[in-house]
Amino acid sequence: MGSFKGHILPGSFFLIAGLWWAGKYSLWYATRRNKSAGAGRLATRAMQRRMEILEGAVVLSFSLIGILAEQFVASGPRFHLFDPTQQQWAQLMIWQHSTMYLFFALSGATTLAIHVSNVAPLALDRLMLAIAFFNEGFLFMYHLHGRDMLDVHVHQLLLYAVFAGALTALLEMFHRANVLLELLRTTMCLLQGSWFWQIGFVLYPPSEVKWDLKDHNNMMFITMCYCWHLACAIITVSVIYCTVCCVVRTKLRRMPPMEMGLLKPRDTGGESEDEVL
Amino acid sequence: MGSFKGHILPGSFFLIAGLWWAGKYSLWYATRRNKSAGAGRLATRAMQRRMEILEGAVVLSFSLIGILAEQFVASGPRFHLFDPTQQQWAQLMIWQHSTMYLFFALSGATTLAIHVSNVAPLALDRLMLAIAFFNEGFLFMYHLHGRDMLDVHVHQLLLYAVFAGALTALLEMFHRANVLLELLRTTMCLLQGSWFWQIGFVLYPPSEVKWDLKDHNNMMFITMCYCWHLACAIITVSVIYCTVCCVVRTKLRRMPPMEMGLLKPRDTGGESEDEVL
Amino acid sequence: MGSFKGHILPGSFFLIAGLWWAGKYSLWYATRRNKSAGAGRLATRAMQRRMEILEGAVVLSFSLIGILAEQFVASGPRFHLFDPTQQQWAQLMIWQHSTMYLFFALSGATTLAIHVSNVAPLALDRLMLAIAFFNEGFLFMYHLHGRDMLDVHVHQLLLYAVFAGALTALLEMFHRANVLLELLRTTMCLLQGSWFWQIGFVLYPPSEVKWDLKDHNNMMFITMCYCWHLACAIITVSVIYCTVCCVVRTKLRRMPPMEMGLLKPRDTGGESEDEVL
Amino acid sequence: MGSFKGHILPGSFFLIAGLWWAGKYSLWYATRRNKSAGAGRLATRAMQRRMEILEGAVVLSFSLIGILAEQFVASGPRFHLFDPTQQQWAQLMIWQHSTMYLFFALSGATTLAIHVSNVAPLALDRLMLAIAFFNEGFLFMYHLHGRDMLDVHVHQLLLYAVFAGALTALLEMFHRANVLLELLRTTMCLLQGSWFWQIGFVLYPPSEVKWDLKDHNNMMFITMCYCWHLACAIITVSVIYCTVCCVVRTKLRRMPPMEMGLLKPRDTGGESEDEVL
Repeated sequence: MGSFKGHILPGSFFLIAGLWWAGKYSLWYATRRNKSAGAGRLATRAMQRRMEILEGAVVLSFSLIGILAEQFVASGPRFHLFDPTQQQWAQLMIWQHSTMYLFFALSGATTLAIHVSNVAPLALDRLMLAIAFFNEGFLFMYHLHGRDMLDVHVHQLLLYAVFAGALTALLEMFHRANVLLELLRTTMCLLQGSWFWQIGFVLYPPSEVKWDLKDHNNMMFITMCYCWHLACAIITVSVIYCTVCCVVRTKLRRMPPMEMGLLKPRDTGGESEDEVL
Repeated sequence: MGSFKGHILPGSFFLIAGLWWAGKYSLWYATRRNKSAGAGRLATRAMQRRMEILEGAVVLSFSLIGILAEQFVASGPRFHLFDPTQQQWAQLMIWQHSTMYLFFALSGATTLAIHVSNVAPLALDRLMLAIAFFNEGFLFMYHLHGRDMLDVHVHQLLLYAVFAGALTALLEMFHRANVLLELLRTTMCLLQGSWFWQIGFVLYPPSEVKWDLKDHNNMMFITMCYCWHLACAIITVSVIYCTVCCVVRTKLRRMPPMEMGLLKPRDTGGESEDEVL
Repeated sequence: MGSFKGHILPGSFFLIAGLWWAGKYSLWYATRRNKSAGAGRLATRAMQRRMEILEGAVVLSFSLIGILAEQFVASGPRFHLFDPTQQQWAQLMIWQHSTMYLFFALSGATTLAIHVSNVAPLALDRLMLAIAFFNEGFLFMYHLHGRDMLDVHVHQLLLYAVFAGALTALLEMFHRANVLLELLRTTMCLLQGSWFWQIGFVLYPPSEVKWDLKDHNNMMFITMCYCWHLACAIITVSVIYCTVCCVVRTKLRRMPPMEMGLLKPRDTGGESEDEVL
Repeated sequence: MGSFKGHILPGSFFLIAGLWWAGKYSLWYATRRNKSAGAGRLATRAMQRRMEILEGAVVLSFSLIGILAEQFVASGPRFHLFDPTQQQWAQLMIWQHSTMYLFFALSGATTLAIHVSNVAPLALDRLMLAIAFFNEGFLFMYHLHGRDMLDVHVHQLLLYAVFAGALTALLEMFHRANVLLELLRTTMCLLQGSWFWQIGFVLYPPSEVKWDLKDHNNMMFITMCYCWHLACAIITVSVIYCTVCCVVRTKLRRMPPMEMGLLKPRDTGGESEDEVL
């Protein structure tokens, strides 16, 4: 996967996940805030549950597809761990990526199980997400031996985003439904995604001009570049947040006043789910 | 203790402790959740206390046996610290292991004292457990000077599990009876146990083929291997958790409806124990 | 900006910000404490909001001015990133400073938006401030390659103040209106400011005598010096705090007893703002 | 102060402080627990305040005496910072110790001010204590350049105790009156004290036999030794805790039943002090 496409692909996934999360959490927060104005009708608890289940299913299936795809590409190891012809481990890189996918698959399966069957505390999905991120960062950390300075540096910068995301998810275990933490994690996910793209363009530039991987000026420039990516991620999230807030308010204004008797019971019934630890 | 058996033994202890914890905490959580359905009868507060006392006693006695066994094996130091014939510290390795056991003995004694006599805040058992884990990690950290790369690396990976367990126990001081933290600690304990086995097989392989302790590919493979151990530990804990939950539910369905007057008083009396800080 | 003036200027800004914060938070705390004595009249909620808006506007405009000033000074890059004549990145230093300003501008804009339009949780301003500080520290960290020992050391000491400030701001996300955290952040800001001055005087001394940048004694002296700056910052903050407390008490004693009917309603209306997360 | 006495002296201070704290916090906790049995009479709130004031005064005066003593010993710098005869900083070591004392003096003064005049939140004393410990650790950290391996190592071990104490004090800012944190800090203080003694005996042994400061076996032995000091500190604290608990209970049993009307008002009035943030 040490190729241009190998960095663009995961980057795109993280970008999509980030955009989805930004929308989802903004919508939920806007709904919570305007509950008295009847916003509960826009995103009912049942719908929220369906969204979570969908998310879990998508994460799970994409991770499994990812594992299979990597194992069975032309040069893949096809689940062989040891290559007897070379007396060597077979395709360690691909096995590492499979391991990363495995943990995201576990995280997706957990989300699915929690929201389908209510068998475990809700906070478990954040814990598993944190573990998946930690695991990703951990494997990347021992991935960099003997590479060029700039190559190591861009991956280290990636690690900051990964671990910041993991820590935020861990904090969410204790402060669930804190919109700031949710959006912070979203930002870190977007940053990770766009930085994967950047890594692809730096290490495997599609144009003729190659980056000098040993120049210290390039390293300083890349560090600054990382900050710009962060700024862009922050601005993207806040634009999505504001848009969602506006849309919710507009819709609420257009809606006829709620008929109390009709909606109250269903709403109240679902409300207490969140408090079940 | 630098031998195959010397790694298998502690590994087995940690594995057994992990399995016991996984069952214990799952049972308690399932009981708490189904309290309204009369689950209090399955694991009463008095029984919980007895389980804690038992656990403390077992940890304490095994640690003391461990210390004595190590000191009095054929080549043991028999509590002599300085070897005058060689003008050297006598058997530093064994003394280090004794020190580790000592802290687990302190932790066991604390658990025993707290649950027998109610003399100190309950959270103290987690604090002492955290200190015992920290101490274990701390001694391992200064244990690795001048060894081969892979040898150092597998022990460093062990340290992650040890310190993660210690930090989780520390967090439990403030968030007692949070089932996620308890199961996370359990997972780390299982990981530690199975990783001890792995270390035994890597450094002292029973077969003819030795590992090349300086090959960087082996190091990358071992890192990935560690992640698989983590995944296995997570899956083991969740299987135990689900089994216990199912068993509790099945039992509850079969039980005749509770006779209120009979059980309420005893239950209520014991309930408030947990709140005594 | 590697000059005497280039360190004095930001230092002065941080010093002014620190003094302002010390006064602001002391006043608010004194007001909260003496609310029953009618201190609400000294710093009403509406006034607090105006102060926050003012602060946000000042931070935002100064940051933008800073960016423009740096970009358009005689030798500035004027928003050109690549210098084709030298085949080099243009003026990386200045671009780095612009990036730092950019994040403080984002922080200022956030404060402004939150307190003007009430669109997002209040705690967001602390999160953005924390990100701005982290970003500043992060850029400084990769800023020091290949400099002299003392040069690196004084900047590392600066990093402690920056990151301590960032962590405190992050903690404030969860413990809002905790006066100790607010004053701790203030102290770190003052420390940062005065340390910028110190760096200016050490690296670009206005007098003839230069510091030996490779002498280890100088390094030990500078470390100690840093502690003195910290002590001075602590004493400054406590003097301001005590003064404000005394002034508030004196004013309250001179004020005629409050006419209840007049002020209560407005006060109560604004009171609950803080609780809106 | 690089002498045997120079390590024994601070060590003794920390040991005394640790013993005092162990007694104080145990007494307060035992009082809180047995309040319903009239334990309030053993350690009334007013007495607690007097103890705090006394402690603050003692810390403050000892720190000031320490500064003066160090500055005016035979070879002291007498508040001269620069030695013009040698073109060198004068006695950096002694100045560093003075700086450490200065922060403990600040901490003592704060405790005094808070409990005498009630001017600031109670938690401030823990914050200042944490800063004093951090400052001590910080100065030690940059104190070790170019020494022998074992010399560096014993001081690094000291740092663990110092920083652990600082972190515990910081946590106490948010969890005040948590007896476990208070006793943990006490343990770290005792550990620090006894370790100072150990350093004195290792680096400046009073006997003829010198330690080989470059032997790796010695380093491993010393690490283990540190763990034993920790175990001793833990046992000391728990012995003191148990003794105090027993004494309080015995006294309570001997006391005649409280006359309710007499003591209630005074008690209740003082009770709420703790809640004033």
